[in-house]
Amino acid sequence: MTDGEQTAFEAFCLAGLWPGLGRTVASRLPDARINSPDDVSIDEIAAAAGISRPLVYHYFPGKLSLYEAALKRASEDLAERFTEPHEGPLGARLLRVMHRFFDFVDAHGPGFSALMRGGPAVGSSTTNALVDSVRQIAYEQILSHLEVTDPPARLELVVRSWISLAESTALIWLDGRRIPREELEVQLVHDFAALTAVSAAFDDELRTLLRPVLGGEPADGPFGDLTARLIALAS
Amino acid sequence: MTDGEQTAFEAFCLAGLWPGLGRTVASRLPDARINSPDDVSIDEIAAAAGISRPLVYHYFPGKLSLYEAALKRASEDLAERFTEPHEGPLGARLLRVMHRFFDFVDAHGPGFSALMRGGPAVGSSTTNALVDSVRQIAYEQILSHLEVTDPPARLELVVRSWISLAESTALIWLDGRRIPREELEVQLVHDFAALTAVSAAFDDELRTLLRPVLGGEPADGPFGDLTARLIALAS
Repeated sequence: MTDGEQTAFEAFCLAGLWPGLGRTVASRLPDARINSPDDVSIDEIAAAAGISRPLVYHYFPGKLSLYEAALKRASEDLAERFTEPHEGPLGARLLRVMHRFFDFVDAHGPGFSALMRGGPAVGSSTTNALVDSVRQIAYEQILSHLEVTDPPARLELVVRSWISLAESTALIWLDGRRIPREELEVQLVHDFAALTAVSAAFDDELRTLLRPVLGGEPADGPFGDLTARLIALAS
Repeated sequence: MTDGEQTAFEAFCLAGLWPGLGRTVASRLPDARINSPDDVSIDEIAAAAGISRPLVYHYFPGKLSLYEAALKRASEDLAERFTEPHEGPLGARLLRVMHRFFDFVDAHGPGFSALMRGGPAVGSSTTNALVDSVRQIAYEQILSHLEVTDPPARLELVVRSWISLAESTALIWLDGRRIPREELEVQLVHDFAALTAVSAAFDDELRTLLRPVLGGEPADGPFGDLTARLIALAS
């Protein structure tokens, strides 16, 4: 990316999809403008970035391509946060990933909501492909931590549907932020354990597959804590 | 709706969003056309319905309005399926609703996928509002069965995120139908119990709120069955 592209790029960070220097640009526009990328004109982007309108067009033929470029970079940023060393208990690994995921959601709130709820470019094949590629990376990362290479259909379902649960939990959190995010990071780790346990309780293949991995969880980790609390709840 | 509108309407059922007589119309078009409403022309709709192209336009100014009308009717159909008498154990009530939900998904597969994954009208305010209104009806129905009128934030989160889990489970099921749908209907009831239990295990308010409702579940119902299996799994 050239310096010019970089500047134009940062300008577009007012969409909330990319932070850093972009925040400075965003601060020059009224808040209302930041919540909906679709309401922001190329003129405003150019003015906020302190560059000319032709320069914006020089690098990006239109607002959609600018949006898609910002989205691509944000997707790569998000996907990188899923990388976690294969060391230590699974619950603790997942908790660290959830913390980084909420860091992202926290920093890019309006953009994340717009994208997931139907932003300006939603429905375009580029946008759908980007969102799906991030979901796929999350899915493959989880499988690799579970040490599974050829997942049966029921494992694929539980992992993919949990990823969707994490997305919707983040969206609901953004709508008012009425629950501390740290609580939701832990809750999603517990949800993963609970949904996996539900599937494993009814499927021998899944039980056999997951027992060696989940069996090694420490009593004071998030998985162990949940088990103890659920036993107390049932009593 | 007049007879003419009704006919034009049924024609558009080839989008997979509305069954009944629409199926007859759909059967006159190649399968490939049915999977993507966006690929179907007004000419094809008119031809398949056996009415003139001007008549289609007379009732609907464009394909989008036809699509939105079909979507509105499908939304009402789906929302009606959430109505369940307030009688008997909660788990059994939810299981009956899940069965009707999967009936809908089964009958409207391509339309349901297109809508949720980004169909032709996704991102339009009408479409978003319709989808959100169905989610809101589902949410209010569940609260009424839980006998809660003023839900705390944590209860709202768990109910709304479970609704999203049901949507994504249905979408993943549609992609290949590799798991019997009856199994997923039961699984979603179990998932509801598991996610609620996770939240209640860490929140006194939720525990107090849900204990009288969930406490009355029979041992041979879906909730009781899950508890027994989870205890066996943990041992």
